[in-house]
Amino acid sequence: MPHKLMRVHRAAGRQSGAARPVMLGIAGDSAAGKTTLSTGLAEALGPDRSTSVCVDDYHRYDREERRHLPFTALHPDCNYVSIMEQHLQQLATGQPILKPVYDHATGLLGRPALVEPREFVIVEGLLPLHTKLARACFDITVYLSPTEDIRRQWKIARDTRKRGNTVDGVLAELERREPEAEAFIRPQRSHADIVVRFAPIDGRDDPPGTPLSAELLLRPTIPHPDLGSVLSGGERRAIHLKLARDSDGRPVDALHVHGYAPREESKMVEKAIWSQLTADGGELPDTLGSLGGGDRSEPLAITQLLLLYHLLEASLSRQRYSGFSKSKRHPASHSERWLP
Amino acid sequence: MPHKLMRVHRAAGRQSGAARPVMLGIAGDSAAGKTTLSTGLAEALGPDRSTSVCVDDYHRYDREERRHLPFTALHPDCNYVSIMEQHLQQLATGQPILKPVYDHATGLLGRPALVEPREFVIVEGLLPLHTKLARACFDITVYLSPTEDIRRQWKIARDTRKRGNTVDGVLAELERREPEAEAFIRPQRSHADIVVRFAPIDGRDDPPGTPLSAELLLRPTIPHPDLGSVLSGGERRAIHLKLARDSDGRPVDALHVHGYAPREESKMVEKAIWSQLTADGGELPDTLGSLGGGDRSEPLAITQLLLLYHLLEASLSRQRYSGFSKSKRHPASHSERWLP
Repeated sequence: MPHKLMRVHRAAGRQSGAARPVMLGIAGDSAAGKTTLSTGLAEALGPDRSTSVCVDDYHRYDREERRHLPFTALHPDCNYVSIMEQHLQQLATGQPILKPVYDHATGLLGRPALVEPREFVIVEGLLPLHTKLARACFDITVYLSPTEDIRRQWKIARDTRKRGNTVDGVLAELERREPEAEAFIRPQRSHADIVVRFAPIDGRDDPPGTPLSAELLLRPTIPHPDLGSVLSGGERRAIHLKLARDSDGRPVDALHVHGYAPREESKMVEKAIWSQLTADGGELPDTLGSLGGGDRSEPLAITQLLLLYHLLEASLSRQRYSGFSKSKRHPASHSERWLP
Repeated sequence: MPHKLMRVHRAAGRQSGAARPVMLGIAGDSAAGKTTLSTGLAEALGPDRSTSVCVDDYHRYDREERRHLPFTALHPDCNYVSIMEQHLQQLATGQPILKPVYDHATGLLGRPALVEPREFVIVEGLLPLHTKLARACFDITVYLSPTEDIRRQWKIARDTRKRGNTVDGVLAELERREPEAEAFIRPQRSHADIVVRFAPIDGRDDPPGTPLSAELLLRPTIPHPDLGSVLSGGERRAIHLKLARDSDGRPVDALHVHGYAPREESKMVEKAIWSQLTADGGELPDTLGSLGGGDRSEPLAITQLLLLYHLLEASLSRQRYSGFSKSKRHPASHSERWLP
């Protein structure tokens, strides 16, 4: 009875015409900095224009149930991967979803929540780039890959403070998760348009409290901004770009953002990038670079600026294609467009 | 960027080829007998071949939240109707869903549950036929419409026993719900292929405990079985068919199934229908007609038999179309096909 299928499709078609959001996917292991990166972006865009989804909500089992299972939360079998794919497709085509909710603090699964797509949808979690169908839903993909030392420090700090774990408990968990991190989390790196690595710089003896530097691998899978003019001046101490080979041999642009550079130099670079992105050079959103608790990282701010660039470009090119020029959600001025 | 959309669709397409289930939708007001009707059907088909979904799980608010709202659970605004439509489409095209869960006993919304479609999906609830898109997802639609007197008795009995309410509480709730029942529930009647009305028969003075009779309006929107041979014999006391006009003036076949008929006569009718449906005249599933707690209703059994007929026919015609002749889930013998 193919007519049934036709009826379903036709009836569904009549409801569509929903604007398609720009989808950013941020993958990385536990405590790789996904939430810090995405929170600053979402705040810069404002809640009217962006919505955030953590795909760890698609955990199939709660923390107690997982204790009795032969795999950890990192394993695809421990997650509703096909439902995640379904929901990503729906968001990518402008449809709302009823998203499951996993509470990281209690380890419990609760009442689901309605998520309506906005102009920008920021998706982060352990496995957003795990399958081909999930990846097909994103306009921009990022993999966060701090050094394992740094990630261990971050995970201990967070899980002991916010998730009721002990230092020994976190270390044991990291060890138990390692084979699945290797099998399922790290392979996502090769599918990202941008790989971000926060790390101290080898061979430097910076004083404690020096912000980490960031290395951004910019793969030619999406068109990156022309950073030439920004990087030709005296700001090379803060940031420089060089041609490199990725660990798999593929050519990439490697953008180094130095944590030890004086803040004024980093700020100059940020303003230069920002003025390229905005018509009227409005104020730089001060949520960029925030580490929470008043701490700042300029390498983080520059990473977020670059992602803002990609989000904005994708939205603009979508508007051009669809013939949009002006609407309530798409004001004409660049700076208005992404300032909350 | 239409290619993004194409990529999503193509990547999704590779996963499809899922068998499409036969979808039965049963609508009706609270305590109209939806669960009793569908439970017997699901048991006759068996859990390997059927799955049941209650669309009241799509309640947007829990019972406590509803106390502070200007509408009741019957109002579409009190339900995630567009998510219900989405999920019905997914089930109808053979995809799994992560279904919200509303606990009628506690009035709370909880952790969602995975529902994987099977050969038959039975969907029941307050609003499954409310929208055109939802209706497009069903192969067979039923509206349950007992007299309001009967429904009130059923609702009082159930809600005081299982949902912690009092008689006065139930009566007040019925009154509060009446305008929304009129506006949203009863209009679904006109979209059903079969309207089932359980009622005592006017003008008869049957002893207490006589099972209710049933009137089934069989609309020509789907091809009904030829009941001629069944109804030509001496069983006319148990069941008869007559041409009638519906309350809206449309012509219908009205099948009357009499609760006061001796059980043997009803049983003969059931066996005659059953033998038309099965090649080898296997045993009639004894879950048909069960009211729970050991009580039986032959009019209910005959209603369920008729629905089994439609489910089976729809599945057969789907197999013919798709070139299926035999598979684990579609055994060739009729009686095997639907006996658990």
